Amino acid sequence: MSTTASPLAVAGLGDVLQLFRTEPTLTRADVIALTGLSRSTVNQRLDALLAAALVVPSGEGAPTGGRPASRFAFNSDRGVLLVADVGATGMRTALCNLRGEVRHEREQPIDVASGPEPVLTAVDEAFRALLAEAGRSAGDVHGIGIDVPGPVDFDSGQVVSPPIMSGWDRYDIRAWFAGRYDCPVLVDKDVNAMAVGEHRSVYPEVRQLLVVKVGTGVGAGMIIDGEVFRGADGAAGDIGHIQLAVGDTDSEPVCRCGNTGCVEAYAGGWALVRDLEVSGVQEALALIRTGDLDAVRLARRAGRILGHAIADAVSLLNPSVVVIGGQLAQIEEQLFAGIREMVYRRSLPLATRRLTIVATTLGPRSGLVGMALLLVDSIFAAHRIDSLIARQG
Amino acid sequence: MSTTASPLAVAGLGDVLQLFRTEPTLTRADVIALTGLSRSTVNQRLDALLAAALVVPSGEGAPTGGRPASRFAFNSDRGVLLVADVGATGMRTALCNLRGEVRHEREQPIDVASGPEPVLTAVDEAFRALLAEAGRSAGDVHGIGIDVPGPVDFDSGQVVSPPIMSGWDRYDIRAWFAGRYDCPVLVDKDVNAMAVGEHRSVYPEVRQLLVVKVGTGVGAGMIIDGEVFRGADGAAGDIGHIQLAVGDTDSEPVCRCGNTGCVEAYAGGWALVRDLEVSGVQEALALIRTGDLDAVRLARRAGRILGHAIADAVSLLNPSVVVIGGQLAQIEEQLFAGIREMVYRRSLPLATRRLTIVATTLGPRSGLVGMALLLVDSIFAAHRIDSLIARQG
Repeated sequence: MSTTASPLAVAGLGDVLQLFRTEPTLTRADVIALTGLSRSTVNQRLDALLAAALVVPSGEGAPTGGRPASRFAFNSDRGVLLVADVGATGMRTALCNLRGEVRHEREQPIDVASGPEPVLTAVDEAFRALLAEAGRSAGDVHGIGIDVPGPVDFDSGQVVSPPIMSGWDRYDIRAWFAGRYDCPVLVDKDVNAMAVGEHRSVYPEVRQLLVVKVGTGVGAGMIIDGEVFRGADGAAGDIGHIQLAVGDTDSEPVCRCGNTGCVEAYAGGWALVRDLEVSGVQEALALIRTGDLDAVRLARRAGRILGHAIADAVSLLNPSVVVIGGQLAQIEEQLFAGIREMVYRRSLPLATRRLTIVATTLGPRSGLVGMALLLVDSIFAAHRIDSLIARQG
Repeated sequence: MSTTASPLAVAGLGDVLQLFRTEPTLTRADVIALTGLSRSTVNQRLDALLAAALVVPSGEGAPTGGRPASRFAFNSDRGVLLVADVGATGMRTALCNLRGEVRHEREQPIDVASGPEPVLTAVDEAFRALLAEAGRSAGDVHGIGIDVPGPVDFDSGQVVSPPIMSGWDRYDIRAWFAGRYDCPVLVDKDVNAMAVGEHRSVYPEVRQLLVVKVGTGVGAGMIIDGEVFRGADGAAGDIGHIQLAVGDTDSEPVCRCGNTGCVEAYAGGWALVRDLEVSGVQEALALIRTGDLDAVRLARRAGRILGHAIADAVSLLNPSVVVIGGQLAQIEEQLFAGIREMVYRRSLPLATRRLTIVATTLGPRSGLVGMALLLVDSIFAAHRIDSLIARQG
C-alpha cells in the first residue's frame, strides 16, 4: 500500500466552507451531521472560517445579550471578483460578489484584433471604474476571470494560434494582471463560459449540453456529465472549422484559419458580412430582418450549414440540450429551421428523440455570467483554501 | 439543510472492498490508515467481507499454529463473470475472474442480423461450454456482460434502432438472460467496450481517448476525463453517420441508416464489399493486401474519408490519443496515411500538437477485454455491494 494515500474520512476546511456556500445558513450541529466530523473538529474548522471572515454569524441567530451565535452563513461580500467577457468587437465587464452574482456591469465596444495591450488596458480601466462604482479597492479583489474569443491552453492561461486575435498568440494574460492585482487570474475560451452560464442558470439538471455561439465566428462549449469539457489541450468545441465537403477545394470559400470550406466560412458573421458586402454583423442582421432576399437566402443557408455541423456534434456527443447563442441567434426564425431540419434528418433517432434545440436564455450575458461562476469554482478549489484564508477579508 | 444528506466521512463496505481490489494484500492497520475509520469499524467491515468470502487471508500471512491472519486479499475466484463481444459476423466469449481477467475464451462466427433469439442462444451455448471448461456452474456466475454492434440505451439495456441488427430493436437482452442466470446483466455498445479495453490496458494515464472501430460499420467509443462517455441516451460516438457533403444527395451512396453520404457508406467494410463486388470484408482486405489497384484506391479513399470524420471528432473533442480498431485496422498502411493527412490538415494546431493516432494494441480482443472491465465496475458499484455480500460465494 501507499503510505501517502489520504484517509477517505477527512472533511477539510474547503469541504466545510463548501457546505456554507450551498446552504443559506447552518448551525454547528448541521455541520457535524453533514460532515461526520467530531464536534471539536467542527469547532476548529468553524473558528478558522470565522476568523478569516469567510463565514459570519447569520442575521436571525446573531449573538444577542451575550448569547453566542447559533447560525452561520457564507460571507459573500468578504471580497469581490472582476470578470471580463471579451468578444471580437465588444466586451462586457462586471464586479461580482463571492457567489459570482453580478453587482455592477459595463458594456463597451473594443477591437480584439488591436492586440493584447490595448484590449487588456481597456479591461483594466473598466475594472477600475467598477471598483470605484462599488466603493471597493484593488485589494478587495479575490479573483479575476477573462474569457476570449479564441483557443486557450487552459493550464497555462495562454491564447494559442487564435484565428481572429492578431498578436495574442502565446500572450501571457495572467502575467499582465499579476502585476496589477494580487489574486488568481483565470483565462478561458468564451464558449466555455457561455456553456457554464446557460447550464448553471437555466439547465442545472441537464448533464449533457452543447452551446453553439454564432457570432463573428462559430464555436461551441460543452457540458459533459455536468462539467465544462475542454479536451486534452483546451481545444475542444472547435465546431466552426469542421469542413463541409471533401473534394474540390477550389469552389470552397477560404476561412480565416487558412483552410477552405469551414462551417464559419459560410455561416459565421464575418462570412455573411463578406457575402452581403456590408460593414458589420449588425448591418447584416438588419438586412435579414428587413427581408432582403439575398440576405434571407444566405441566413437560411447558414442555418442548414450550422445544422450540418451541429448534427455531427449531436451524433458524436448525444447532448440533451443544444443552445444557440451569439449575435446571429437574434435571427432565430431564419436560422433555426435549417438547424433543426439537418439535425433531425442526419442524427440517429436514439440521439434526437429527447433532444431540445433552443436559443440562448441569457443572451449576450451568458459568457459574463458563466465566467463569474467558473471563477468562483476556481477561487474556492481545495488547493486555494489556505491562501484564501491567509488573505485578509 | 437537508437531513437526508450523507455524511462525507463514512467509508462503507464497498469502499473497503475497493481497497482490496486495488492492492495485492492489506493488513488491518493498512485499512485503518487508508480509510480513517476506527479499528472497531474496520474489524466489522473486514469480518463481513471475510464471512462473504469476498476477502480471504492471504498466503504469506495466512494463519499458522493458532496465530490469526495478518494479511488479507481480494478473492477474485469467489465467482466468475461471463462476457460476450458480439460483432456483425463473429463473436468472442470469455469466462473471467472477478478482476475481469480472461480465464477461458472462445471465438466463433455468427450473423447478428439473424436476430436476437439465435444469437443469444449461441452466446448462452458458448457460456455453458466455458463454464464446463472451467469446472464452474451457472450459480457461480456473478455477472454477465454483452456488447453489441449497435446503439444501446444504456439505462434500459435495450438496443435501439440498430441499422445492422435486424429484429433487435427494443429487444430486452437483460430479460433473456435473467431467466437463465441469477446475476446482473450489463449491455453496452461494442465501441464503448473497445474504448475501455484500450484505455485501461494500454493508456491508463490518458484522460481523453477516442477509439474508432472500422469494421463492417464505423463507430467510435470515447473516454472523457478518464471515463467512458455515452451521451444523454447512449447514442454518443456515432461517427459512422457523419455526412460528408451538403448539397447534391443524388450522387452520394445510400447508407444502411437510410440517409445518403454517411462516412460508413464510403469507408465501412460493407461499402468496400459493395464497391469491390466481393463476398465479405476478409475478401476485400485480401484484395487490398495483394495490391489490386481498385482495391488500394478504395482503401486510400476510405482513409481520407475516415480522416475527415476523425478530424471533426478531434476538433470537437480534442483527445490525446486516437486508436483505430476493427477489421480494417489491419490495412494500416493504406488507411492511416489518409487519416493522418486529413486530421493534421483540418484540426487546430492546439488540438493536434500532442495528438497520437495509432492502431489498436489489443486488436480483435479489445471489446472483450473492455466489456469484462466494465462488468467488474458494475458488479462492484456501491449500490450492488449488499446483494453481492448476500450471494453465497
